[in-house]
Amino acid sequence: MRHHDLVVIGAGSGNAVIDDSFADLDVAIVEERWFGGTCLNAGCIPSKMLAYTAHVARTVREAGTYDVDADLRAVHWREARDRIFARLDVERDEGRTGREQQDAVTVYEGTARFTGPRTLRIEGVDGAVDVSAGQIVVAVGGRPVVPGPVVEAGLPYETSDTVMRIDAPPRHLAILGGGYIAAELADVFAETGSSVTIVEKEEHLLGEQDETVRERFTDLVRSRYELRLSRELTAVGGRPGALRLTLDDGSTVESDMLLVAVGRLPNSDRLNLRAAGIATHDDGRVIVDRHQRTTAEGVFALGDICSPVALKHVANREAEVVVHNLRHPDDLIAADHELVPAAVFTRPQIASVGATEQDCRGRGLDYLVGTAGYGDVAYGWAMEDTTGFCKVLAEPGTGRLLGAHIMGPQAPTLIQSLVLAATLGIDATTLAKSPYCIHPALTEVVENALLDLDL
Amino acid sequence: MRHHDLVVIGAGSGNAVIDDSFADLDVAIVEERWFGGTCLNAGCIPSKMLAYTAHVARTVREAGTYDVDADLRAVHWREARDRIFARLDVERDEGRTGREQQDAVTVYEGTARFTGPRTLRIEGVDGAVDVSAGQIVVAVGGRPVVPGPVVEAGLPYETSDTVMRIDAPPRHLAILGGGYIAAELADVFAETGSSVTIVEKEEHLLGEQDETVRERFTDLVRSRYELRLSRELTAVGGRPGALRLTLDDGSTVESDMLLVAVGRLPNSDRLNLRAAGIATHDDGRVIVDRHQRTTAEGVFALGDICSPVALKHVANREAEVVVHNLRHPDDLIAADHELVPAAVFTRPQIASVGATEQDCRGRGLDYLVGTAGYGDVAYGWAMEDTTGFCKVLAEPGTGRLLGAHIMGPQAPTLIQSLVLAATLGIDATTLAKSPYCIHPALTEVVENALLDLDL
Repeated sequence: MRHHDLVVIGAGSGNAVIDDSFADLDVAIVEERWFGGTCLNAGCIPSKMLAYTAHVARTVREAGTYDVDADLRAVHWREARDRIFARLDVERDEGRTGREQQDAVTVYEGTARFTGPRTLRIEGVDGAVDVSAGQIVVAVGGRPVVPGPVVEAGLPYETSDTVMRIDAPPRHLAILGGGYIAAELADVFAETGSSVTIVEKEEHLLGEQDETVRERFTDLVRSRYELRLSRELTAVGGRPGALRLTLDDGSTVESDMLLVAVGRLPNSDRLNLRAAGIATHDDGRVIVDRHQRTTAEGVFALGDICSPVALKHVANREAEVVVHNLRHPDDLIAADHELVPAAVFTRPQIASVGATEQDCRGRGLDYLVGTAGYGDVAYGWAMEDTTGFCKVLAEPGTGRLLGAHIMGPQAPTLIQSLVLAATLGIDATTLAKSPYCIHPALTEVVENALLDLDL
Repeated sequence: MRHHDLVVIGAGSGNAVIDDSFADLDVAIVEERWFGGTCLNAGCIPSKMLAYTAHVARTVREAGTYDVDADLRAVHWREARDRIFARLDVERDEGRTGREQQDAVTVYEGTARFTGPRTLRIEGVDGAVDVSAGQIVVAVGGRPVVPGPVVEAGLPYETSDTVMRIDAPPRHLAILGGGYIAAELADVFAETGSSVTIVEKEEHLLGEQDETVRERFTDLVRSRYELRLSRELTAVGGRPGALRLTLDDGSTVESDMLLVAVGRLPNSDRLNLRAAGIATHDDGRVIVDRHQRTTAEGVFALGDICSPVALKHVANREAEVVVHNLRHPDDLIAADHELVPAAVFTRPQIASVGATEQDCRGRGLDYLVGTAGYGDVAYGWAMEDTTGFCKVLAEPGTGRLLGAHIMGPQAPTLIQSLVLAATLGIDATTLAKSPYCIHPALTEVVENALLDLDL
């Protein structure tokens, strides 16, 4: 059995673990599908590149608002797809060949399963190989959940893994699910030529967002998509290219393509973790302590396989923690999961950090709300924006920031000073009054929301 | 002679001085031209609204980069102008009528000149009135500088005061000056139909920016404008609509319109300040101490008439300081002029705070440089951006931020976390590593520039 000092399973965020500090070790990395993982190949990056393309198309469509007379002749989906994936596939391939060219790193292309504590069998195209390791990092990520009625129908469906690489937008796209992946892809396909129906079991889209955000967002997109809210899928019928979804009220949705975006689950069920003594939560996530150590000696985990927050920037942090902790067992560090900002790259964009208002109420917190509209600051006038806003939640008296929520252009950029302040304990008054805000920049929306707090 | 407790001269930023805390006083405000001042009527706001319109036109023109096939049929200048100024003129008029409807506030429409300490003569359309005041705030702003050769020619010219309200973009616009006003308006007119020639005495545009910014910006716009750099205007000839500028090397520029944008000067020469005992700097700015007090007892000043940084966000801060200090002579406060961010709303946008690299070198400081490109982060890929960058300057060892400079989309928003950090003394490492940055948001450019510092 081949022995390595370190085996990393999963070349998404796991690939970042192998840095120069391991040059003295015999290191292996196992990847069954694509270097760069979900983020590069089927997640954050291509979806944002498509979203930006959609944003340009929409700017052309709405140019008249700014007295610019423009005609949108076509959105060339296939060219956009090829432009985007040509770039990303190069990154993916360079990730693999870069590792293959390193003498100290062995690359296994195949699927790893534990056969015992720190021993693995890797099934590749050329057969199986057994390896053992001094330390192992599990970073195999997650995959889209596919509900029973979709599986049982045996009819074609897409997920975020596949839909961004299709040849042409469908005439009518049905999307199952109303979370951030569904919302972003709805926007992409609506702008590139599809009519979109969204089936969501909750009464709002983006159910995890602050209540003001999810309500206003849902209201805004009502005119763009057909929304079937508070509805569940019971069956998929019809035939390929002419599907018929049946919902729990007996109503139906006809579409030529179905995108399943109801959530993701960790790939822990594919690893035979029991053989290694690695325990999981009920939801399938590998249990780790704050130092990213699993319940098995010498085995770490990071990213969507274990993280309470399945976002790439969190996986990156956890990778940094694992890099350190692998080499410094007596000086372990931890990743913070408290104040993780997140964004949705829809129209309008959304960004948030910390508690929502419903969180605050649910926890019985005493809190203040400050809000400001893009339409009340000069750059919002320039953008002719009428729906954007910033909402901040703060502790009475101290002004400690509990949460912040922005819906509107540049939201993922605008949120950053609020993330910084919340993370470092900078109170709302100091944040509003100490640094200058450029006039007339969009940052004035954040300033105004902070000043709106009745501290 | 009518006596008021407080007279504010200038209803731009000066208008913000009169808040509820003065409800018990007899207050007057004098304005000769427009409520809202330069910012609302001829400065920051209309220029940004036009710049955004230009941005939309350019997005249509460049849509093919994103595989969006679009045709720009026309940019309707007159409609855009009317849309913008219809909104701003309402704001201006509501500013005046709001004051006129307040019993405790007297509005004088006219030009004020000092006749003695805290006494003024106000010349209006209905004649002159003399007033005295317990306290006076001087906030009469500034105006565009018009060089001798332009004045002497007696031919038509525009300034930022007038050019945004013209009926149609000229076929060929000559711009004298290469600072931020010139650069922003060059962009507006180039996108709305003019060919543009810029005559600038320095070898770069945006000479006050960090050397990397001004060099790269100048290089970028070389293909869009005809640049006559290191050149001065010696004469203006021709006739209205067919002007001929002669430069100091004997070369000429033919244009149908001349925009003069070589700088601004304070309006102190129009106030008969000597009669009031109010002293000025050699450059015409009213001398104030850090509490915004002039050399005359009971007379304060704020904004472009006195400020070392002629920007609206600074004037706003100074107005807050004056509001406080007028009522709290024993508890004076001061405005900070150290870390004032500024932006240029060109293509690409530019934002900066603190020292430039040439400042650091000139002061003999020991400094480190960190840079990162938009093209190296995923959102920059989505934007297909190849020229944007962030540059940070920090003190070796401590990581104290000395300055930061960003050129690229969203720069005025992106700079804010750097402004906050510089203002509160948050070091570069903490700023880079403590708060999460959303992946893939543009904030990763700032994070990467900070991580590039060799601390």
